[in-house]
Amino acid sequence: MQLNQWGEESFIRYLSEQFAVSKPYVGIGDDAAVIPGEYGESLLVTTDALVEGVHFLKDHISPRDLGYKVVAVSVSDIAAMGGTPKQAFLTVALPKSIESKWLCEVSEGIKEAALQWQLLLLGGDTVGSKRDIFLNFTLLGTAKTEHVKYRKQAKPGDVIFVTGYLGDSSAGLKALQQKLSKTAEINHLILAHVRPQPHPEQGVWLGAHAQVHAMMDISDGLDCDLKRILRASQLGAVIETTQIPLSATLKDVSNINQWDPLEYAITGGEDYCLLLTVARDGYKDLQEAFQNTFGQPLFDIGYISSQTEHLLYLKDGLPIEMNYKHFDHFQ
Amino acid sequence: MQLNQWGEESFIRYLSEQFAVSKPYVGIGDDAAVIPGEYGESLLVTTDALVEGVHFLKDHISPRDLGYKVVAVSVSDIAAMGGTPKQAFLTVALPKSIESKWLCEVSEGIKEAALQWQLLLLGGDTVGSKRDIFLNFTLLGTAKTEHVKYRKQAKPGDVIFVTGYLGDSSAGLKALQQKLSKTAEINHLILAHVRPQPHPEQGVWLGAHAQVHAMMDISDGLDCDLKRILRASQLGAVIETTQIPLSATLKDVSNINQWDPLEYAITGGEDYCLLLTVARDGYKDLQEAFQNTFGQPLFDIGYISSQTEHLLYLKDGLPIEMNYKHFDHFQ
Repeated sequence: MQLNQWGEESFIRYLSEQFAVSKPYVGIGDDAAVIPGEYGESLLVTTDALVEGVHFLKDHISPRDLGYKVVAVSVSDIAAMGGTPKQAFLTVALPKSIESKWLCEVSEGIKEAALQWQLLLLGGDTVGSKRDIFLNFTLLGTAKTEHVKYRKQAKPGDVIFVTGYLGDSSAGLKALQQKLSKTAEINHLILAHVRPQPHPEQGVWLGAHAQVHAMMDISDGLDCDLKRILRASQLGAVIETTQIPLSATLKDVSNINQWDPLEYAITGGEDYCLLLTVARDGYKDLQEAFQNTFGQPLFDIGYISSQTEHLLYLKDGLPIEMNYKHFDHFQ
Repeated sequence: MQLNQWGEESFIRYLSEQFAVSKPYVGIGDDAAVIPGEYGESLLVTTDALVEGVHFLKDHISPRDLGYKVVAVSVSDIAAMGGTPKQAFLTVALPKSIESKWLCEVSEGIKEAALQWQLLLLGGDTVGSKRDIFLNFTLLGTAKTEHVKYRKQAKPGDVIFVTGYLGDSSAGLKALQQKLSKTAEINHLILAHVRPQPHPEQGVWLGAHAQVHAMMDISDGLDCDLKRILRASQLGAVIETTQIPLSATLKDVSNINQWDPLEYAITGGEDYCLLLTVARDGYKDLQEAFQNTFGQPLFDIGYISSQTEHLLYLKDGLPIEMNYKHFDHFQ
């Protein structure tokens, strides 16, 4: 059987079983691994790969943006656990024909992101590659052990939130692929794709609130990622699609290009905002405190149900079919 | 300028300057990064990549050996700093046509190595790749902060040691490339190549000895790696080539095939034993204690001189030219 028949989820499940670990470690399956230390502090570790031809095309993203992005997506993983990102390690596998100028610009982008999030790049590996470019970024972070959030902690009745607009990034990718002319609006979407802005401060803040139960970041799309929380928590969810936050830009551009903005928001991915579930009791106070702290809303989009792994989409309260196909790296 | 003109060392130097960090961190340039903790213990982090067509060929190494090897080389990096390896993270980038059986066997090899060195695999990333397979292994370890060894700590007059025979691994690779018939001796060399045995216990033991100054592992060959110690320490070295430990197998096979075993030992690489420099005072006691503890010799092969970056090879006390070419990933 080939990998495209087996599927990414099956392969990860296989690895999880092969390398099952006992408490207090939390292994494969969350956005970062958790290594509890002795003094109430946990070490968080995440690793993310970007592969040429799969995650990026050299003519769709500048080397500087690529460097920036490989850092940003890892920062998002640490944020998703409620942690603060700290030390970083970069592996690059490079064909020998690559231009040193291109490499230096990737490095500049990494440096810019490292400064923005106050990371130290402490090492890595530089190796050859026959054809394609591979980047792998490993990021360590820390969190108070009791503040770490997992996917499996959702509770029935929890309100589901996201910390930002969904769909801009994947619409930006579409604009790049279709070579749409670069109006200000299109550039805004492309920027969301090539320079994602993760939410590490929000992650730490939410981590410190006990009424926040499950948390992760949206990297593969709301539908795909919410299902991961549901699988981990053995629960279901109801999403009111009219509540899903769409940027004015995405709505405008979708209107002009006859796109369905919800498709981008639900299946697009690479939004790198946070997806979380919160105890119903006092959730409005949390929402208000979040707005006061960050000057941005915490968007409630639905709730957790007790129907195991059942994800129901509503439109104005009525069930709708959701036939969008989501992305599998190996398909 | 293309990367093959620029060279791997130049690129790494560029990155080191871009991402220079201040004490107490030690960044790019040693076998692992060192993150000092508050309680006299340091966290060590190393990351190693294996790329299809560069580091391995699918028809030269079994998937099980490949999985084993990606772990072993990382264990060697932690050993080189005087640390104990602990938690691991695996990134795999895979073309969709890959057989799930092959993957499961890679995973079995990783598991076998993880058991051997008591590691926990806690996470990673599984992504697609257009063509080649890419594995990246990140390994965390710990060491007492005062026991951590660096490349820059060699002192003039230090005796230079290695902890094992050199050249078997690269001769094994040669045997694979030349499709030599698999006698017991050839199999021994191939095993050294596909199942390297790093020296983590020796690393911790040597780390605990203050008379051990500089240390690293031999991954790119004695010549290349010793030069790294010399560059970091701003010193030179004199190596007595007749003292370089060669296995009886390598000598026999070289004899039969008219190979020069010293070429493998000096430039071959992937030996994954330790290379260290030791204060001259009492070095014989250390050698004896090492032999008593591990039942294997600590081989002295030369000494550190004060001639900056000057590496002199002797044969029976007389200088010889060394014209072997060593491996650069990007050439």
